[in-house]
Amino acid sequence: MKDIYIADLANFDEGKLFDGYFLVLAKQQRTTKTNKPYLNLILGDKTGQLEGRVWELSDPRIAKSFDRGDVVKARGSASRFDDRLQMKIDQLRLALPDEVDKTDLLPATTYDVADLWRQLLGFIESFTNPDLKRLLTTVLDDPALAQAFREAPAAKQLHHAWLGGLLEHVVSLLTLADRVAPHYPILDRDLLLTGVVLHDIGKVRELSWDIGFEYTVEGSLLGHIQMGTALAERTMDSLPDFPPRLKLLVLHMILSHHGKLEFGSPKLPMIPEALVLNFVDDLDAKMQAIQSEFDKSIREGKGPDELTGKVWSLDQRQLLNTRRWLGEAEK
Amino acid sequence: MKDIYIADLANFDEGKLFDGYFLVLAKQQRTTKTNKPYLNLILGDKTGQLEGRVWELSDPRIAKSFDRGDVVKARGSASRFDDRLQMKIDQLRLALPDEVDKTDLLPATTYDVADLWRQLLGFIESFTNPDLKRLLTTVLDDPALAQAFREAPAAKQLHHAWLGGLLEHVVSLLTLADRVAPHYPILDRDLLLTGVVLHDIGKVRELSWDIGFEYTVEGSLLGHIQMGTALAERTMDSLPDFPPRLKLLVLHMILSHHGKLEFGSPKLPMIPEALVLNFVDDLDAKMQAIQSEFDKSIREGKGPDELTGKVWSLDQRQLLNTRRWLGEAEK
Amino acid sequence: MKDIYIADLANFDEGKLFDGYFLVLAKQQRTTKTNKPYLNLILGDKTGQLEGRVWELSDPRIAKSFDRGDVVKARGSASRFDDRLQMKIDQLRLALPDEVDKTDLLPATTYDVADLWRQLLGFIESFTNPDLKRLLTTVLDDPALAQAFREAPAAKQLHHAWLGGLLEHVVSLLTLADRVAPHYPILDRDLLLTGVVLHDIGKVRELSWDIGFEYTVEGSLLGHIQMGTALAERTMDSLPDFPPRLKLLVLHMILSHHGKLEFGSPKLPMIPEALVLNFVDDLDAKMQAIQSEFDKSIREGKGPDELTGKVWSLDQRQLLNTRRWLGEAEK
Amino acid sequence: MKDIYIADLANFDEGKLFDGYFLVLAKQQRTTKTNKPYLNLILGDKTGQLEGRVWELSDPRIAKSFDRGDVVKARGSASRFDDRLQMKIDQLRLALPDEVDKTDLLPATTYDVADLWRQLLGFIESFTNPDLKRLLTTVLDDPALAQAFREAPAAKQLHHAWLGGLLEHVVSLLTLADRVAPHYPILDRDLLLTGVVLHDIGKVRELSWDIGFEYTVEGSLLGHIQMGTALAERTMDSLPDFPPRLKLLVLHMILSHHGKLEFGSPKLPMIPEALVLNFVDDLDAKMQAIQSEFDKSIREGKGPDELTGKVWSLDQRQLLNTRRWLGEAEK
Amino acid sequence: MKDIYIADLANFDEGKLFDGYFLVLAKQQRTTKTNKPYLNLILGDKTGQLEGRVWELSDPRIAKSFDRGDVVKARGSASRFDDRLQMKIDQLRLALPDEVDKTDLLPATTYDVADLWRQLLGFIESFTNPDLKRLLTTVLDDPALAQAFREAPAAKQLHHAWLGGLLEHVVSLLTLADRVAPHYPILDRDLLLTGVVLHDIGKVRELSWDIGFEYTVEGSLLGHIQMGTALAERTMDSLPDFPPRLKLLVLHMILSHHGKLEFGSPKLPMIPEALVLNFVDDLDAKMQAIQSEFDKSIREGKGPDELTGKVWSLDQRQLLNTRRWLGEAEK
Amino acid sequence: MKDIYIADLANFDEGKLFDGYFLVLAKQQRTTKTNKPYLNLILGDKTGQLEGRVWELSDPRIAKSFDRGDVVKARGSASRFDDRLQMKIDQLRLALPDEVDKTDLLPATTYDVADLWRQLLGFIESFTNPDLKRLLTTVLDDPALAQAFREAPAAKQLHHAWLGGLLEHVVSLLTLADRVAPHYPILDRDLLLTGVVLHDIGKVRELSWDIGFEYTVEGSLLGHIQMGTALAERTMDSLPDFPPRLKLLVLHMILSHHGKLEFGSPKLPMIPEALVLNFVDDLDAKMQAIQSEFDKSIREGKGPDELTGKVWSLDQRQLLNTRRWLGEAEK
Repeated sequence: MKDIYIADLANFDEGKLFDGYFLVLAKQQRTTKTNKPYLNLILGDKTGQLEGRVWELSDPRIAKSFDRGDVVKARGSASRFDDRLQMKIDQLRLALPDEVDKTDLLPATTYDVADLWRQLLGFIESFTNPDLKRLLTTVLDDPALAQAFREAPAAKQLHHAWLGGLLEHVVSLLTLADRVAPHYPILDRDLLLTGVVLHDIGKVRELSWDIGFEYTVEGSLLGHIQMGTALAERTMDSLPDFPPRLKLLVLHMILSHHGKLEFGSPKLPMIPEALVLNFVDDLDAKMQAIQSEFDKSIREGKGPDELTGKVWSLDQRQLLNTRRWLGEAEK
Repeated sequence: MKDIYIADLANFDEGKLFDGYFLVLAKQQRTTKTNKPYLNLILGDKTGQLEGRVWELSDPRIAKSFDRGDVVKARGSASRFDDRLQMKIDQLRLALPDEVDKTDLLPATTYDVADLWRQLLGFIESFTNPDLKRLLTTVLDDPALAQAFREAPAAKQLHHAWLGGLLEHVVSLLTLADRVAPHYPILDRDLLLTGVVLHDIGKVRELSWDIGFEYTVEGSLLGHIQMGTALAERTMDSLPDFPPRLKLLVLHMILSHHGKLEFGSPKLPMIPEALVLNFVDDLDAKMQAIQSEFDKSIREGKGPDELTGKVWSLDQRQLLNTRRWLGEAEK
Repeated sequence: MKDIYIADLANFDEGKLFDGYFLVLAKQQRTTKTNKPYLNLILGDKTGQLEGRVWELSDPRIAKSFDRGDVVKARGSASRFDDRLQMKIDQLRLALPDEVDKTDLLPATTYDVADLWRQLLGFIESFTNPDLKRLLTTVLDDPALAQAFREAPAAKQLHHAWLGGLLEHVVSLLTLADRVAPHYPILDRDLLLTGVVLHDIGKVRELSWDIGFEYTVEGSLLGHIQMGTALAERTMDSLPDFPPRLKLLVLHMILSHHGKLEFGSPKLPMIPEALVLNFVDDLDAKMQAIQSEFDKSIREGKGPDELTGKVWSLDQRQLLNTRRWLGEAEK
Repeated sequence: MKDIYIADLANFDEGKLFDGYFLVLAKQQRTTKTNKPYLNLILGDKTGQLEGRVWELSDPRIAKSFDRGDVVKARGSASRFDDRLQMKIDQLRLALPDEVDKTDLLPATTYDVADLWRQLLGFIESFTNPDLKRLLTTVLDDPALAQAFREAPAAKQLHHAWLGGLLEHVVSLLTLADRVAPHYPILDRDLLLTGVVLHDIGKVRELSWDIGFEYTVEGSLLGHIQMGTALAERTMDSLPDFPPRLKLLVLHMILSHHGKLEFGSPKLPMIPEALVLNFVDDLDAKMQAIQSEFDKSIREGKGPDELTGKVWSLDQRQLLNTRRWLGEAEK
Repeated sequence: MKDIYIADLANFDEGKLFDGYFLVLAKQQRTTKTNKPYLNLILGDKTGQLEGRVWELSDPRIAKSFDRGDVVKARGSASRFDDRLQMKIDQLRLALPDEVDKTDLLPATTYDVADLWRQLLGFIESFTNPDLKRLLTTVLDDPALAQAFREAPAAKQLHHAWLGGLLEHVVSLLTLADRVAPHYPILDRDLLLTGVVLHDIGKVRELSWDIGFEYTVEGSLLGHIQMGTALAERTMDSLPDFPPRLKLLVLHMILSHHGKLEFGSPKLPMIPEALVLNFVDDLDAKMQAIQSEFDKSIREGKGPDELTGKVWSLDQRQLLNTRRWLGEAEK
Repeated sequence: MKDIYIADLANFDEGKLFDGYFLVLAKQQRTTKTNKPYLNLILGDKTGQLEGRVWELSDPRIAKSFDRGDVVKARGSASRFDDRLQMKIDQLRLALPDEVDKTDLLPATTYDVADLWRQLLGFIESFTNPDLKRLLTTVLDDPALAQAFREAPAAKQLHHAWLGGLLEHVVSLLTLADRVAPHYPILDRDLLLTGVVLHDIGKVRELSWDIGFEYTVEGSLLGHIQMGTALAERTMDSLPDFPPRLKLLVLHMILSHHGKLEFGSPKLPMIPEALVLNFVDDLDAKMQAIQSEFDKSIREGKGPDELTGKVWSLDQRQLLNTRRWLGEAEK
């Protein structure tokens, strides 16, 4: 584990020295007004990212020795310029391979990935529909895909935007959908849960997460809905005697899960399972965004009476943390 | 129980005589092209409504003896004119009070109202928050309101548009919300369930259900959101030491439960409980509408391959009955 | 060729007898106000459809001898009831197989299909990109698909809603796109024309055209964009060494050709060829709709000063036939 | 009266010293790039607000001696940094109570509040409807509410965003509505004027105006429409024999005065008086915004040929000052 | 004056004979189910229009003796068929020129046109701006235009859709604008009133009102905004030394008076006078529509508790007649 | 030709001296934090614009010797401050008239204007409709208008925003429309091309292009659609016996060419030629914007795998340069 994280610097004494390992997200040579050159960096780790400036380099070759995507060891101090936190870096070098723990460098789920994976497999194990069970088993038996499924974020920003976020989101949805399914007898539970597992599977190729979270070119041009549909169709076509009607319904659920044409689904939900999938997916994403916003308010020192910042996925709405506000009142 | 219902007439032999009791929803004196007067009626019962024509009246005083809102006993036959079913009525008289069972005359919930009511009270009993428990207990202790709550439809048309529909909808929502609440630790379960119980309470005055389902003038001018908020506020003001912050949150949940300004909520949900209330309310209304549409398709003799009619509350979308379609395939 | 067509009946003397062959689009047993049974039919041919009533059947078994989708020979007369044209049918029987020319029974392109097909192949022949040429050649070498491509309408209603309409639309677009391509040097002409050929290929399975034009269940749940994308992807995957970037661009063009999310494209055009495809597709559909509307105005006897009826695909706009209006002025 | 106001500083010689009293709207400790600490303030008075920096503090205890919401006496000079005006503060201390005139510290109406209040009472005096007269008299007889009504701004930003702005807006509307009412005989003048007086009354609790203009938590969660409706309902319920139909109409006018669901009114205007209220309210707010924008253009030295800045409440439109532009032409 | 009007027939005893003069709005030859020919007419006068059927013609030449746009004398009776009032016409002939009073045949303003005209001139007389005064004087001095201005309806349907409706609407607006102008000192009253007089002047050519109210081809292609702007521009160009800036403002007011691009104004109001013009125009149109709807409710026998029908220009809203509803309560 | 252009400075060594001539787009006196005055300029030429700062002026009179709109000779160096390129100017003087080539100072078409003009005249020469030919000939015979037509940009920003851009856009459109016209027989080619020539003619007065590109006051209040329509109408009115129907169609094409009310066209296209004009205008503008964006990406050193920046006229979409991306793959 690292000694110091980006998020720690907000409460760090100004001027106090730290040593830390960071991922280089951007690197630029610049000049001051008085024509003095300096190095401007964006450094990140799992807790966030920050601008850093190297005003004096002990050796000019250091600036050439690393690039975007590398990990560096930096010594410096934090300071605030125009109300924006910055790092002032005094010394810098490329990190050695054995100094780096990759999971420290990008935000990652706080859950145990192996445990999430076991939960996922447990849900599939519980299916009574043999065709849907072998479909999901086949998909997850592909080692490359399974590995990517465990690593992928669920989004570039917005909600569950961290390593393992996709898996965390899917397992949360499985639990939720499994609670909702018995309430409506018209629902086919296994079909609904299959939709949950596969709805965002295209994201393992839509996004890249080596250096920050980005869209791939393929992801930009096709989108995860199309990519996931194609993956599911190929897999079902490879399974002997997969029922054609069931195939159609599975594809429809992936296609329609955004719930509206203007959100990028080319078809609206036309079966009850697709409607429920769209609802729980939307609800879970928003609840996660609210939880993150509440955490952020506390981190930023806001009082219980203060509304959160504007939440992008809730139309820039500001929210109130019910429990905190009521707790405050009771004191 | 009535011998014959409106819905039965669709499959009745043309010309065969029936006797039945119906609620008069409209009455009009008209003339044929050849200047012959006749009586045109809209007659209804719990299974639907139908146009009926009285071509010959044994006694002209009969036409004066009843009005909109009365119950009549009619003898006649069913026939189809321009592809529209009609009743041809031969004899007609005002029904005697003891001949009429009011629950036969308007559509009503298929659930046992007493049982729904027990479930509702059971949920309130389970509350750990004493203030919310006494709020709901006080509201439901008002006998007139409790009676109206048991009778009211949840809507004029759309979803749960039948006697007892409001209670049925609320109990379904309580069950669903109770399943969802533990999944998100930031949720205050009792507050969420309180929102469920009160969100549509204004409908007991927004709608009237004596003769068909109509909006009252008050309902048209104020709406059930305002009426429910006022009722909740009055009740909380009457309770000694009701916590002011809790009052604010309860009012906010009623105000915001439609989820969007353009759906008539003057405020968007700004606390997690209000967001979840909006989601489960919307989901339950849509699932009920889908179920009704599936039932209607079967009643109309549509095959499993045929999509339903266009569902108003789902943007005129047509749906496919998953289970029926898959079942058909397996045969 | 048939002796009499639906469209002819509008100008037929009322009461004059005709004999004709028609496709049965709907059949219903009904009763008059006076309880007399009759048969109500919707009969169609390539020029339109009309309601027909059989008041007296020489033999009751005739009504059982045919069904929706059959072709019948009917003798009767045309009349106008409440300003709506109708057929009064006196005699009726199932048509013999050799009496029926299927192309007479549904609206069909006025172009020579073989000639359109030759033009299509000619455009592909002109490609300089070998990969795109073998892609299209492979697609059109599938005999079942080629047959469906020659028969399919381009839409259920709206534009090119006739047998061969899809091919007619594609050939018109190829000609237009080929004129536009050299005007913009950034355009890759072969890629653009490939998009034109494949953009609506999914319609061969989205629609059925045996008895009228209908959506298949598969078409309703997946849509022609997804179905066409899958077909193209499968074909490209089957071609050895098909360039992966080219594959991506072809798929993107099909996905994005509706030009807007709310029109069912899950991605907006992000390459110049996709943008141009969306423009020419939209323009050609609208110009065809205008031409049809002008033809209809003339058929209905409207004067040159009268605007057309409201055109659905042009936001219910009414149009003026420029040439006719100016011609009228010059006289 | 203060010697120097924020607005004066724009035309102040750079470097020239001033002394002034200001309200502290924000206070933050910061550090320069070279790790030197300084104090960053937002200081305001009735003419606007400005950033101020204290680079050297004679005594470090001074920074602790005041907080957001306090009034300070500052000596310093104005300067422009990156084209943005700033204060450079040399000396600073907490102001003494008798040095402060609160009306100098927040923007306030330029009208005489006592005179506006007399006009308001005069309109109520002129009512012929005794019930509406006693309703408004009762509301304004509450001393706390009357005081708040005289102080409250009409908005946080946008229009009439100054102390007394609510009263100024209401009196302007009364005058305007009184001119419009006789033009349409279907209008009930007293009802219309009652709606004018009460429509924004909820703003006295939706907003706070002690330190700048802010939304209260209650205001954020309920909104002034709900808060005003509740206040009016409580008052009418307290009046013996207040006609129930009149009560309903008064509540409807408050509820519907924003004119559209998407502007936060849960009901659209359904009586002529509510429609007119929405029109005059909207017009008056826009005319005030235009007037402010014209004043601002002159203050900023724009010529008569230049359009104003973009007006938020007019869809970011820019306006032309007719009279000024014509005057310029006549010279 | 005519003896009998269309509106009278609603309360006419069925079967009782009447004689009347009507404008022929449509004429069609039709046939009954049993092949019997009859004549179907739409007849109108200033109170409305009604379908009429001539079952037996004493002389077949009569049907050829008149056409759409002619006035006929008809003898017949009123009857109700399928709840729709109809005329059964027994005798019919072309009216003689001296039998016809044209103002009886189309709906017309209930105001005295000469008096409205005097009011219009009076407002212009009151102008202090000589350029605007000579502009309006010049426009209204054109006898053909003045005649059309006195006759034109203000719309095809919607509001003021009757002969003289344009003038009635303009005079109402002048009165209203003259009341509003002094309330806002930034307004140039003469410019505002000039905008009022000219804003809809293009309607004298956009609409035709010889036989019912229709759009001309020119009106359909250009619209009254463009036609009015061109007329105003031509007139101002013809006046020596008309100030160019004033010309620009007048044109801008006509262009922008619909207030929104989507309502057909190519520019939004950018001067205060244009904003006010848009407001009062919109308000006056809506108030007139409400008044008409209230009148219609009374004519149709609706009670004071019943909402009106849905008002097209108010988003299909239903309204409540305040005064009637309150009056009813007081009894 | 100038020695150095704004665009060159991006790749200029920091600190290296240059001499250049630039147009002064803005000039402001400012002060540093330490109260030192300096001069802040926006300098531009045909390749772009850049901020420049003069820290030391050899003679204070220099700052007074020039103003916005003048051309200056500057000596200085480029540097990057906070990642934004800037000029540091050491010496500065007003340029001499004979040192300035105006076409160097604003962005201008890369085509030969004389050649574009010849092409334009050539298209008109090819007309077979004599009325349309004399209309366009008359318009272009006005020397002032012809000069403005050759100079005007097609827009303030967005597409073809450079001197000669209007002419370049019109000639591109003529070529494109001439290719499309023969494809649809219902099109009147000469009418379509007339619409192309005149559709944006109002821009010669809507925009000014002396110092940067700005809207005139007249342009802001009336817009180029109205101004172009008026110009066309005046010209047609001046031609003896110009056919009135043709005049109406020409005006309609100018009015409707933006294709939607919300884009500022007061009428939607109602003739086929107007529809096609709207399509090709829209397509050409977008294709030009894409081409500019591709050029910019190359200039900025983006790789072939990188999407462009967000394109304003394509809903902030990012695009991929097909040819470059495929070319990269082939290497």
